[in-house]
Amino acid sequence: MATSLDLHTGRALAAAFLKAGHPTTVWNRTTSKADQLVADGARLASSADDALKTGGLTIICVTDYEVVRELLGASDAELHGTTLINLTSGSSAQAREAARWAEQRGARYLDGAVMAIPSAIGTEEAVILHSGPEADFAAHKSTLKALGTVTHLGADHGLASLYDVAGLAMMWSVLNAWLQGTALLRTAGVDAATYATFARQMAVGVADWLPGYAEQIDADFFPPEVATLETDARAMAHLIEESEAAGINTELPKLIKAMADRAIAAGHGEEQYPVLIGEFMQRR
Amino acid sequence: MATSLDLHTGRALAAAFLKAGHPTTVWNRTTSKADQLVADGARLASSADDALKTGGLTIICVTDYEVVRELLGASDAELHGTTLINLTSGSSAQAREAARWAEQRGARYLDGAVMAIPSAIGTEEAVILHSGPEADFAAHKSTLKALGTVTHLGADHGLASLYDVAGLAMMWSVLNAWLQGTALLRTAGVDAATYATFARQMAVGVADWLPGYAEQIDADFFPPEVATLETDARAMAHLIEESEAAGINTELPKLIKAMADRAIAAGHGEEQYPVLIGEFMQRR
Repeated sequence: MATSLDLHTGRALAAAFLKAGHPTTVWNRTTSKADQLVADGARLASSADDALKTGGLTIICVTDYEVVRELLGASDAELHGTTLINLTSGSSAQAREAARWAEQRGARYLDGAVMAIPSAIGTEEAVILHSGPEADFAAHKSTLKALGTVTHLGADHGLASLYDVAGLAMMWSVLNAWLQGTALLRTAGVDAATYATFARQMAVGVADWLPGYAEQIDADFFPPEVATLETDARAMAHLIEESEAAGINTELPKLIKAMADRAIAAGHGEEQYPVLIGEFMQRR
Repeated sequence: MATSLDLHTGRALAAAFLKAGHPTTVWNRTTSKADQLVADGARLASSADDALKTGGLTIICVTDYEVVRELLGASDAELHGTTLINLTSGSSAQAREAARWAEQRGARYLDGAVMAIPSAIGTEEAVILHSGPEADFAAHKSTLKALGTVTHLGADHGLASLYDVAGLAMMWSVLNAWLQGTALLRTAGVDAATYATFARQMAVGVADWLPGYAEQIDADFFPPEVATLETDARAMAHLIEESEAAGINTELPKLIKAMADRAIAAGHGEEQYPVLIGEFMQRR
């Protein structure tokens, strides 16, 4: 196995393979960055080409897709029979383009996204997403497990990037809602630690509704129940009023209400919250 | 015990008391609304005054605070020794004002917020928040438990309203982030049910960080780690790009990035995400 690496993430990936007992070859443009890995038993490739020639599985984790192109484009290594897994951060379009290029060169190609900080790599907590042909993922899954909780999302090479940014949108949104609440409660003398327990319970509680709400979206049917978008919009006005009265930021509350108001104006006031998917699907 | 009620929530509250075996008196402006409760063993008060005179504990749950004022203002019932628990939706300022009025009349007063749909009332799932003097909550806690998971937040009567809207902000934010991701993944042919499982895991995972992040806020210290606000901002740009490329709504992604960009411009790029509390505390 060859691992071409850059940055902390690449090093952590190689270290996780070594720790799991996999023969690992490493390469980095700055050779000294691999010193510790070599001391821990990795073989140092003399060039990117050498690294690519070494194994049946090559993990690529560099700064961006431009660097991927430079490295692989300059290589005349025989890629037939090799599987490339590219964990470099980039867009779904870049992932699909890299897949086309790699497949033209005869390589098997999976794109991936590492949803973890380097220190979590090699533990269950590290979520590593893969997309591309399922058979190629299945062939290497037992090896990849050394890196963390590895998942295959589907055949479309762009999926790992899309799930990555969608998941991060959830992360930032939970954090921002928590910060909004923390700011509001602070003005009433409640410290962040006290409020965090409540915020955590709310987030977990609502997360549990998502699979049920998803059924409404897939069925395009949002039956009116006691809680309708109208009820929500009235409470959204309270959130804005309280934030204004407290003298804190109202941007997030106002965006939340603006989107609901548009859906209500479009006639969805008596439907349930997930009907807002229509607003989110609209270019704006 | 007397329960003055309106709307579905009030009826559900009275039903929960009856089911738990508590002697319950009910009153509603539209008498017929209490028919089922009376059939189930509630005593029907002849007037709001009569209801207020009946018990040591009166739950008020009406449309808004104006109705509360009308009902109680018109009453010349002796309120000394009575505890009023007002579960009507309103602002923290209205709750504090109602508390002053009730206390001037000699009543004990708790304000509250029902964070549940009526069908959940009487089950553990119904979260009911209370704020006001702790002793008054403690005196009635065993009775209130019939309604759901009851919590006391603090002596400030405004806290229940503030926690309520803060918790709802979390609810809407988890739902909106999920809708953003659902819209994005849909453009790649992934159905809502498939994405919901992943979104749920992300929300739960991030929720678990909140207590730790809260410590940073209370200590006003956001030590740089591998994941800094700068790293986040780069990924936020990816979220905007992917949303634009997919032709979906970019308002939420752009607000997320705008807030981070302002904090970075203010010199916080090498600190951790919770440093954004500064942006949320700022009137805007």
